[in-house]
Amino acid sequence: MNKQQILTKRPVGLPDATTWDLQEKPIPQISDGEVLIKIHYISLDPAMRGWMNDVKSYIEPVQVGDVMRAGTVGEVIESKNDKLPKGTFCSGWGGVQQYVVTNGKGWYSVDPKLAPLPMYIGTLGMPGMTAYFGLLEVGQPKAGETVVVSGAAGAVGSIVGQIAKIKGCKVIGIAGGKDKCDYLINELGFDAAIDYKEGNLNTELKQKCPNGVDVYFDNVGGVILDAVLTKINMKARIVICGAISQYNNTTAIKGPSNYLSLLVNRAKMEGMVVLDYASKYGEAAVEMAGWLQTGKLKSKEHVVDGIENFYDAFLKLFSGDKLGKLVLKVLD
Amino acid sequence: MNKQQILTKRPVGLPDATTWDLQEKPIPQISDGEVLIKIHYISLDPAMRGWMNDVKSYIEPVQVGDVMRAGTVGEVIESKNDKLPKGTFCSGWGGVQQYVVTNGKGWYSVDPKLAPLPMYIGTLGMPGMTAYFGLLEVGQPKAGETVVVSGAAGAVGSIVGQIAKIKGCKVIGIAGGKDKCDYLINELGFDAAIDYKEGNLNTELKQKCPNGVDVYFDNVGGVILDAVLTKINMKARIVICGAISQYNNTTAIKGPSNYLSLLVNRAKMEGMVVLDYASKYGEAAVEMAGWLQTGKLKSKEHVVDGIENFYDAFLKLFSGDKLGKLVLKVLD
Repeated sequence: MNKQQILTKRPVGLPDATTWDLQEKPIPQISDGEVLIKIHYISLDPAMRGWMNDVKSYIEPVQVGDVMRAGTVGEVIESKNDKLPKGTFCSGWGGVQQYVVTNGKGWYSVDPKLAPLPMYIGTLGMPGMTAYFGLLEVGQPKAGETVVVSGAAGAVGSIVGQIAKIKGCKVIGIAGGKDKCDYLINELGFDAAIDYKEGNLNTELKQKCPNGVDVYFDNVGGVILDAVLTKINMKARIVICGAISQYNNTTAIKGPSNYLSLLVNRAKMEGMVVLDYASKYGEAAVEMAGWLQTGKLKSKEHVVDGIENFYDAFLKLFSGDKLGKLVLKVLD
Repeated sequence: MNKQQILTKRPVGLPDATTWDLQEKPIPQISDGEVLIKIHYISLDPAMRGWMNDVKSYIEPVQVGDVMRAGTVGEVIESKNDKLPKGTFCSGWGGVQQYVVTNGKGWYSVDPKLAPLPMYIGTLGMPGMTAYFGLLEVGQPKAGETVVVSGAAGAVGSIVGQIAKIKGCKVIGIAGGKDKCDYLINELGFDAAIDYKEGNLNTELKQKCPNGVDVYFDNVGGVILDAVLTKINMKARIVICGAISQYNNTTAIKGPSNYLSLLVNRAKMEGMVVLDYASKYGEAAVEMAGWLQTGKLKSKEHVVDGIENFYDAFLKLFSGDKLGKLVLKVLD
């Protein structure tokens, strides 16, 4: 049997325990050209919250009654497709379930000997690619510049900061709690970290960015975006990657009150969606894998076990009760 | 004697009649290297409101007790500077007064035979340059694209829309009132106009921009910026030139609640300040003068007479009770 988390309704605000229903269905038969994949790990991402809203966005919303959408990595256990023979490990949109049948479109093979499987849905997967292309192509940091990243201990933010260090920037991470801030400085090599829960964001930003902010990679929106806007330099680049502080709002999203700092500083704020860079994932993964091997880049996964624990794990995305990339292990 | 409008205090919200004081001072003597300019016309611009706030911005604030800053055009009536002989007409930061002494730095000569003097502080001056560089260098419109401009009947907006037409774009102007909308369509050749005072901005935008918005040139901020954000296309460019709806706020500026449309659409919002393009004003003025001569570009000035009427004229910037570029005539 195939355990699946089915979307039962469109949540308002933070999803509750009845937003998904764990159901068991028979494992489907495969037809010619298809493969059956046994999923090992499921990627949990803040973006999943947006996929549940019935609005026009960069991707179709998940329909009520469908398996919850998620990136996954697993193994082909039956194959009628020469490109993905039995025994192949691969990554793709498998959804929050134990097994998936696919014709292989959008899936790509991965090598579990080169990196642990969860890393293929983390640093070498969508979050890593988001960090890589968002920072380098949209943020365009130059050596010596000051780069600030929010959600800095998360799957995307932790990679953004490390790549900025590799590129010779001064890097300040904003995260929630002392443990995360210590982790950024002591393990990932950030120059400084700001614990936004301490409540003196403006003072800390001023102290830790004495030369102002050249690139701000924003994962959170809200008051943190507004605070950083008061510290940007001339021609600063703000990468809008996400706004996790606003995803569960039941009222209007808080727009950046200080957006006229863009005018004063001739700065820009630009949105990015990782899917646009799909044709270049390969070369980015090669470069990132090199950095991982030489220890310039560190990857951390926070693994929660069991598909039945999907809801509890999902909440950790918003409570912040995790470090690094959150993945759900579903292999028994 | 030299009549001057002196800033008496920093206004909170909309300036009132006691924000400036009309004073008379003796006309100063000039020293070697200086000239005395008799001012003919003073430029009134929404940006003046920002110059009165004691905040870090793209230009130093006007100090209390000083002559109010303003762009001007006038005639050299005494000269001890070979570069600006007596009889030269020139434009520069003369301030809200009848006479100014300067060493000529930042002033440039103009030819009253080629264009009426007020045009040198309008279409061929700062507002025109703002429109030209903001649209072409930041907005980067391509033929066939849809360009929306707010404050469309104003000094900057009216030129933005006409240049966009020259570049082969579809142009929609947003303005307040039927007369202004008629003017945009019938006299300036805009494809469509939206009267925001009618209160159905979203519906009108949808109807008049069936292919979405590629470039939005924003002079107003507030609810209009938010409405246009819901209609932008992939890779849209939003030029942040001003936010007149927010300049007299006594509470926090309204940030754009719909800014995550930048993410969904991989779009950017970029601030601009015309002063950055000073080295290229000359070539822009030549091109704009050519368009004026061939009738491709129309320039309209709204002239208020008398330096004692400065305050009443200033209010027209925010009440919208004017069409085109607002100038104060101070020549007796």
